[in-house]
Amino acid sequence: MRATVIHGERDIRFEEVADPTLSTGGDAIVRVVAACVCGSDLWPYRGITPTPRPKRIGHEFVGIVEAIGPDVLTISVGDFVIAPFYDCDMTCINCLNGVSTSCLHGGWWGSDDRLGGFADGAQGERVRVPHADGSLVATPGAPAEHLVPSLLTLADVMGTGHHAAVSAGVTRGSTVVVVGDGAVGLCAVLAAKRLGASRIVAMSRHADRQAVAREFGATDIVEERGAEGIARIKELFDGIGPDCVLECVGTQESMDQALRSARPGGMVGYVGVPNGGAELPIGLMFGTNVGANGGVAPVRNYIDELLPEVLDGRLNPGRVFDLELPMAEVAEAYAAMDERRAIKVLLRP
Amino acid sequence: MRATVIHGERDIRFEEVADPTLSTGGDAIVRVVAACVCGSDLWPYRGITPTPRPKRIGHEFVGIVEAIGPDVLTISVGDFVIAPFYDCDMTCINCLNGVSTSCLHGGWWGSDDRLGGFADGAQGERVRVPHADGSLVATPGAPAEHLVPSLLTLADVMGTGHHAAVSAGVTRGSTVVVVGDGAVGLCAVLAAKRLGASRIVAMSRHADRQAVAREFGATDIVEERGAEGIARIKELFDGIGPDCVLECVGTQESMDQALRSARPGGMVGYVGVPNGGAELPIGLMFGTNVGANGGVAPVRNYIDELLPEVLDGRLNPGRVFDLELPMAEVAEAYAAMDERRAIKVLLRP
Repeated sequence: MRATVIHGERDIRFEEVADPTLSTGGDAIVRVVAACVCGSDLWPYRGITPTPRPKRIGHEFVGIVEAIGPDVLTISVGDFVIAPFYDCDMTCINCLNGVSTSCLHGGWWGSDDRLGGFADGAQGERVRVPHADGSLVATPGAPAEHLVPSLLTLADVMGTGHHAAVSAGVTRGSTVVVVGDGAVGLCAVLAAKRLGASRIVAMSRHADRQAVAREFGATDIVEERGAEGIARIKELFDGIGPDCVLECVGTQESMDQALRSARPGGMVGYVGVPNGGAELPIGLMFGTNVGANGGVAPVRNYIDELLPEVLDGRLNPGRVFDLELPMAEVAEAYAAMDERRAIKVLLRP
Repeated sequence: MRATVIHGERDIRFEEVADPTLSTGGDAIVRVVAACVCGSDLWPYRGITPTPRPKRIGHEFVGIVEAIGPDVLTISVGDFVIAPFYDCDMTCINCLNGVSTSCLHGGWWGSDDRLGGFADGAQGERVRVPHADGSLVATPGAPAEHLVPSLLTLADVMGTGHHAAVSAGVTRGSTVVVVGDGAVGLCAVLAAKRLGASRIVAMSRHADRQAVAREFGATDIVEERGAEGIARIKELFDGIGPDCVLECVGTQESMDQALRSARPGGMVGYVGVPNGGAELPIGLMFGTNVGANGGVAPVRNYIDELLPEVLDGRLNPGRVFDLELPMAEVAEAYAAMDERRAIKVLLRP
C-alpha cells in the first residue's frame, strides 16, 4: 500500500510501504476513507522537532474495517469507524476515569513498539489498529458522505477543542476567550458555544478564520496580541477578564496570554501541545487564583457524547476543513497548512 | 499600644507603637483577643525574604470592636469579629465572584499605603481595619472562650486548607493526598474530610502532626518523600494515584511531589505560598492531564460557610494550636515554630 512518510524537514512523501497485517488477535485493519494534517504534524515538518530517520506520520482518520482479529467483539468487517489520535483499551482504570490518553496499554500511531509490532501512521491507505474494540467507534450504518469531514474531526480537533472547554469548566453562562485560531481553537469556540457559554471571544488576525469562528458561535473577535490583547480582553469583561480561557496553541506566548487574560479565580483550559519547554508562572497564578487544567485530550472518551450531534447535523465541526486533496498530494497539504493557505486539509486516499 | 515588629532575621520584638486611629469613615478599631504566627511569617524571620527596615507583622486575629467610623453599617462596637488575613470590601466584582483576595480595593495587614494610611499588623494589641463592613465577620453574640482558637483559624489556616480542597475539586468519595503537615496541611485534611473524601493520606514525618492528621480524618500516613513517597502513594491508589492532591507547602519539591502523585486527570489544589521562583512543569502536566488550581485563599468568602460549624462544635480546627503564649513572648512563639517545637502558636495580648 502507500502511506505518508516524513524524511526530514519539509520532505513529505507518499510512498510504497508494507501492507499491515493482523497480529494480536484484538486488532483490526481499517481502510482509510479520510485523513488529515494536524497542526502538530507541522512541528517535524518545520524541523522544530527533528526527524533523524524516515518516519510514518499522521494520526487522524476515519475508515472502513477490512479485517479483524479473532478476539475482536464489538467491531465488525464493513463498519465505518472513527479512530482517536491514539489507541486505547477502554477497560483500564485510566480509560474508565475518562483519561484514555493515559491508557495503561495504549500508544501512538506511527510507533515502532506498539502492541503487535509497528503501528501505521494515519495518512496512509490502511492502518492496523491495536485494541480495536477499545480504540474504534463504529457509526450506526454507513454515514452520509457530507458527514465525513465532521466525523473525522472527532478523531482529534473537535474532541480536543471540547477538552479545552471542559477542562476550563465552561458551563451555561460562562464567559470565554479562545487563544488560537487553528482548527482546534475554532473547535474550542464551537465546544464553548455547545456548552452554553454566554460570550465567546476568538483571538484571530485572519479574516477566513474569524468567519469560521463567528459561524461557530464567537460573539467577538480580538486581533491584538500580547499586552494590547490582554488590555482589550479585560476591557470586554468588566475590566477583569473572562471566567475561562481556552489555550489552543502551545507556545509560551500563548500560555502567558491565556493566564494573564483570565479573571481572578478563572481557569485556563489548555490543549496546545507545549512547545519549547514552556512552564507555568506559579507566582502569577497564585496571586490571581487562575488555574490551569487540560493536556493531551482524551478524545476517545468524548466520541460517545459528540457523535450523535454530528450524525443528526446539530454539530458541524467539519467546517474547519477548507481544502481537500488526494492523499498523493499530501506534500502540498503540509505546505498549504504551513503557509496558512488552509486552516486544515482533508486527504482522500 | 504594643505590637510586634520584625527588625530583621530572627529579630522579633513586641514594642510600643502608635495607637491606631479611625481615618476613612468605613474603618473600625479592633482590640485583639487572639492572634497567631503563620508559617509564612517564618520567611522573613528566617531571612528568606529580606526585611530592609523594621516592619509590623502578623495577619491573623480575632477581637472585639472598640470603635467604628460613621459609614460602618453592619459591624457594631462590642462585636466579636473574625478578620481575614487581608482586607476587602465584599462589594467589588472579584469579591462577588468569590475571590476577595483580588478585591479591587483591598490590601494587606502591615502595609504603609492602605486605604486611610498605615494598616496595622495583626500581632498587636489593636488593629485598624479598613472596609470594616466587608472585611469583618461578627459572631452572633460573644463566643464561648473554648471556641476562640477555632474561630481564629477562620482568619487563615482553616479557610486556606478548605481552599486547597475546593480548588482540587474534592467532593464526596474523592481520594486525597495532602502534602505538608503544617497547620494549613492539617486543616486541608479536615476540609477534605468535611467535603466527603473517602480516603485521605497525610504526608508527615512528625508523630505529633500525624496524630492531629488522624484526628482530622486522615486514613493513612505516608512518611516517605520524593520518588519513594510518590511510589508509596501510587501503590495506595491502584497504582495510579489519588484524584486530588492538596499542596500546602509552596516549595518546588512539594509541588513536584504533588503533581507527580496525582492520578492521570487528577487535580492539584495548591495554597502553599510559592517560594524561590517555583514554576509548574507543563510538559508533565500536559501528558498526564493533571491540573493545578488554587492560590492565595479567599478565606473571607469561606467564613459564612464554615463559621456555623465552628460555633456548633462540629468543626474543631483550633486543634492545630499546640502552644499558647502571651503576646509579649512573641519572639519565643516564632522560635518554637521555626524549630518545629510547635505546629502553630496562639498569642494573647
